[in-house]
Amino acid sequence: MYRTNTCGELNLTNVGNEIVLSGWVHRIRKMGGMTFIDIRDRYGVTQLSFDLEVNEELYTQANKLGREWVIKVEGIVKERSSKNSNIPTGDIEIIANKLTVLNKSKTPPFTIEDDTDGGDDLRMKYRYLDLRRKAVRKNLELRHKMTIETRKYLDHLDFLEVETPTLIGSTPEGARDFIVPSRMNQGEFYALPQSPQLFKQLLMVSGFDRYFQIVKCFRDEDLRADRQPEFTQIDCEMSFVDQNEILNTFEGLTKHLFKTLKGIDIPDFPRMSYADAMKYYGSDKPDTRFDMQLVEMKDLTKGRDFMVFDSAPYVGAICVEGCAAYTRRQLDDLTNFVKRPQVGAKGLIYLRYNEDGSLKSSVDKFYSEEDLKLWAERCNAKPGDLILVMAGETDKTRKQLSDLRLEMASQLNLKDKNDFKCLWVVDFPLLEKDEELNRYFAMHHPFTSPKPEDMHLLDTDPGAVRANAYDMVINGVEVGGGSIRIHDRELQNKVLSVLGFTQERAQEQFGFLMDAFTFGAPPHGGVAFGLDRMVSLFAGLDSIRDCIAFPKNNSGHDVMIDAPSKIDKEQLDELGLSLVKLKE
Amino acid sequence: MYRTNTCGELNLTNVGNEIVLSGWVHRIRKMGGMTFIDIRDRYGVTQLSFDLEVNEELYTQANKLGREWVIKVEGIVKERSSKNSNIPTGDIEIIANKLTVLNKSKTPPFTIEDDTDGGDDLRMKYRYLDLRRKAVRKNLELRHKMTIETRKYLDHLDFLEVETPTLIGSTPEGARDFIVPSRMNQGEFYALPQSPQLFKQLLMVSGFDRYFQIVKCFRDEDLRADRQPEFTQIDCEMSFVDQNEILNTFEGLTKHLFKTLKGIDIPDFPRMSYADAMKYYGSDKPDTRFDMQLVEMKDLTKGRDFMVFDSAPYVGAICVEGCAAYTRRQLDDLTNFVKRPQVGAKGLIYLRYNEDGSLKSSVDKFYSEEDLKLWAERCNAKPGDLILVMAGETDKTRKQLSDLRLEMASQLNLKDKNDFKCLWVVDFPLLEKDEELNRYFAMHHPFTSPKPEDMHLLDTDPGAVRANAYDMVINGVEVGGGSIRIHDRELQNKVLSVLGFTQERAQEQFGFLMDAFTFGAPPHGGVAFGLDRMVSLFAGLDSIRDCIAFPKNNSGHDVMIDAPSKIDKEQLDELGLSLVKLKE
Repeated sequence: MYRTNTCGELNLTNVGNEIVLSGWVHRIRKMGGMTFIDIRDRYGVTQLSFDLEVNEELYTQANKLGREWVIKVEGIVKERSSKNSNIPTGDIEIIANKLTVLNKSKTPPFTIEDDTDGGDDLRMKYRYLDLRRKAVRKNLELRHKMTIETRKYLDHLDFLEVETPTLIGSTPEGARDFIVPSRMNQGEFYALPQSPQLFKQLLMVSGFDRYFQIVKCFRDEDLRADRQPEFTQIDCEMSFVDQNEILNTFEGLTKHLFKTLKGIDIPDFPRMSYADAMKYYGSDKPDTRFDMQLVEMKDLTKGRDFMVFDSAPYVGAICVEGCAAYTRRQLDDLTNFVKRPQVGAKGLIYLRYNEDGSLKSSVDKFYSEEDLKLWAERCNAKPGDLILVMAGETDKTRKQLSDLRLEMASQLNLKDKNDFKCLWVVDFPLLEKDEELNRYFAMHHPFTSPKPEDMHLLDTDPGAVRANAYDMVINGVEVGGGSIRIHDRELQNKVLSVLGFTQERAQEQFGFLMDAFTFGAPPHGGVAFGLDRMVSLFAGLDSIRDCIAFPKNNSGHDVMIDAPSKIDKEQLDELGLSLVKLKE
Repeated sequence: MYRTNTCGELNLTNVGNEIVLSGWVHRIRKMGGMTFIDIRDRYGVTQLSFDLEVNEELYTQANKLGREWVIKVEGIVKERSSKNSNIPTGDIEIIANKLTVLNKSKTPPFTIEDDTDGGDDLRMKYRYLDLRRKAVRKNLELRHKMTIETRKYLDHLDFLEVETPTLIGSTPEGARDFIVPSRMNQGEFYALPQSPQLFKQLLMVSGFDRYFQIVKCFRDEDLRADRQPEFTQIDCEMSFVDQNEILNTFEGLTKHLFKTLKGIDIPDFPRMSYADAMKYYGSDKPDTRFDMQLVEMKDLTKGRDFMVFDSAPYVGAICVEGCAAYTRRQLDDLTNFVKRPQVGAKGLIYLRYNEDGSLKSSVDKFYSEEDLKLWAERCNAKPGDLILVMAGETDKTRKQLSDLRLEMASQLNLKDKNDFKCLWVVDFPLLEKDEELNRYFAMHHPFTSPKPEDMHLLDTDPGAVRANAYDMVINGVEVGGGSIRIHDRELQNKVLSVLGFTQERAQEQFGFLMDAFTFGAPPHGGVAFGLDRMVSLFAGLDSIRDCIAFPKNNSGHDVMIDAPSKIDKEQLDELGLSLVKLKE
């Protein structure tokens, strides 16, 4: 037997017990004729004590152990003379009377501590050692608990978890698919799903009523910092519901997760239209932990011969509390920030509302103190505040103001990781236009239902049609989104044709769904949450990578197992494939 | 609002309530001036009644509905005059006062009934309609419940569910991998996992202690009736345990599933050595719902000049209860059965132990009544029993007797689908020899630990080394299996070299695992269950296909979505691949 207890559970009630523990040598401390060893497992750390005077052989044996060796120890639980109140087992120690080495260990390439000395690359190469660190493991424990609680909640609401296939057909629409050559059908390919969208809709046609699945999805995109080629979705769909019932159901799920995993009661989620989100935050995923809403200033700024404002369709501002004393240098830095290519603005106008009530702007040449007073009023500014103004094309400038708003929030430490502000953004546009290609794309996906009251605009002004589509946003992160789906074949045809699909292509790609709609499809809708993002948000992580056990790097490599890699020519032959000459 | 209630929950306590139901038109019955419509959803069926005399317009509207139309009905719950005790809602009906058609339906290509008139191909093409059938849906409901209960049980035991990657590296060892070309790394490939074996072992090295995952796995094999290219495993691993603790833990899980899903108390599982399983059942997955054990007869049959027996290293029999009166024709059929290429025997000897106590065999020429009496005694035969004897090479003949045993059980209806006999088969051989290739292969996989007491045979007689490996067998189906793993680098090297790996190939393929073993790997072991098989066993299905929502056919096709399929040349170009000319 390897253990009677784990390394995290012994306390004063166990004093006198004969116990067996197994685990890793975490720390070794030698003090005179005593050696103390912390033995560690997933559940905690327990101190072992070896006394030269009591048992010299065992003492000598203990002193030969190295960091991360795997040992089994038999001994007796004793109350400690100097207690450690930082750990649950801090009141006791083990007087060892037998020690067995289960496995030796080389010295790890970095320390197994919360603050490790290992760099990112080294940690990923030895991910199995990195995962020994409590700081990393607790993210995966949280992930486990989140899936357990999600399933519990949805199961209680009669949702059925149904596994949909991983080997499906490729659709050129949307992001790029990973493909899988078929050996039994040479020249043909499966694709890995970007989401189970079509299958979950078919399950609604099947009368499954309430479906969910925690499921791997795949997207062959050029990776950014917070993207992985494989990611996990909490995927859900319901029949015979309107948008409101869906929002309430999954707001309930999210509250349940905050309550059970973080002990936090979240109030009812505000619901903000997409139009308002853009107007007041310049973003469809507003971070509402702090104010600094966008204020429209066009009417106050015109007719003073300031061409930059007069020629712009939009002038907007944010009011930054208590920053009137920003130095010239700090303001220059902000101007440089908005001029970075990632933000792309031409410049930044400021207005200081000084503590003494005076007003000082970078456009004093054009605007009188009276004018500026009106600006300050519009922004609800108080003495001591700083107003930052930008102008240009409406959508672009709002986006730039949003970037500036988030930057100011970072500078002012307003992004509290322990504060969670949740909301629904609703009434998304159905379509967005790619001006270059001069065609419309679905903002969510082609199966999203237009709002009945906007249906008449489909022919005349498709860009103005709003959808029954919604996103859940927490602290500026889009954690999930969904829509009421189209369940009528004619309407689906119509929307696909607005999206530029010919009848033939629509039939070829989505024929089985359109056919299914002719056999009694119920009204339905759903939502999908990004599990990785949700966990990283709950855990306060900056990247999703640390809530994934074995993540890939930015070039899609798993450096630990060295994948992807070359394969034998025989394997390619069997698949009827050959490599074309690689680019030089 | 689409509904106040589901179609499965209204009863006499609701009489008088105003309710709204939504669902599918299941059946329409017209009787005089009354029309009765059964409305169906996932939860049940409720009768709607429309009375010509009360509301002619509504009555006319109801009579225009078709099978599988989706409707919403508003009405009042009323006690039925003629009750139907077969369904939970059979005491009531709905007096409709408003009817809305939510979607029409074409006539489905087969009936949506438990006994449908649809053939397999049609059902698979319209799987979304097939899934409307309760008989199919309840298998998926069972699957959902099984995963919920599995997670509940393992979570309570501190197992953590950890997602391992789906895009991993290819290993030529074992079955064929599905591969996924990498676009970002042209000429390189991911593989889809056949199991998360290496990752779960690494998680043990990481100190995760108890891991599980319900996970999709992939195997590119030529498909047999009961194989799918993608399948689901309940995958588990534990540290600091011996074989017994693993068996007890997962025996506990299985008992929990039988208790919660079927209401059945399963007694403790017998543990049978592989050697005994082969000796008494001729199979490593014995069906123990019935006896008919194999009986060794060699010593009783020799020295009577019957060359077939004398030249055979093995003579064995089964005693079939109550079948002494089998006709000549029936016995010929059995002989033909064992001569089929799938069984491959040369012939079959019989001995009737007639009701009158007389003995009659097909080898009376060689054996006296005294001899045959000894045979009957050895077989514990009673008057009325039939003894069937086969001879030949030991392993082959045992396998043939096993086939015959299962055939007799089928003929005698001994395979009761509601009787569940579980056992562990233990002490599997570590290796099996491929006589053609004259090399050893791992019976489970190369990471299985040899039994310490057999370790000394690794060099001298590798085929005789037993492993700490075990299978869970229920009703003759191997539902799961696993082993204690090697956790020592030297031993792993040794076993890989017995398997014919050079140091270089071992390092190339399993280097990261072998390296991990040098950093303090704990003793560990685990098990994996086939979820599809487990569900189909619980559901009493003959194939795993009906417990999978969207299965593939025997050529790996999903005929509903038509996958796999051809892809655009541009997609291949991006991957740096081209198709070689297809075989004519």
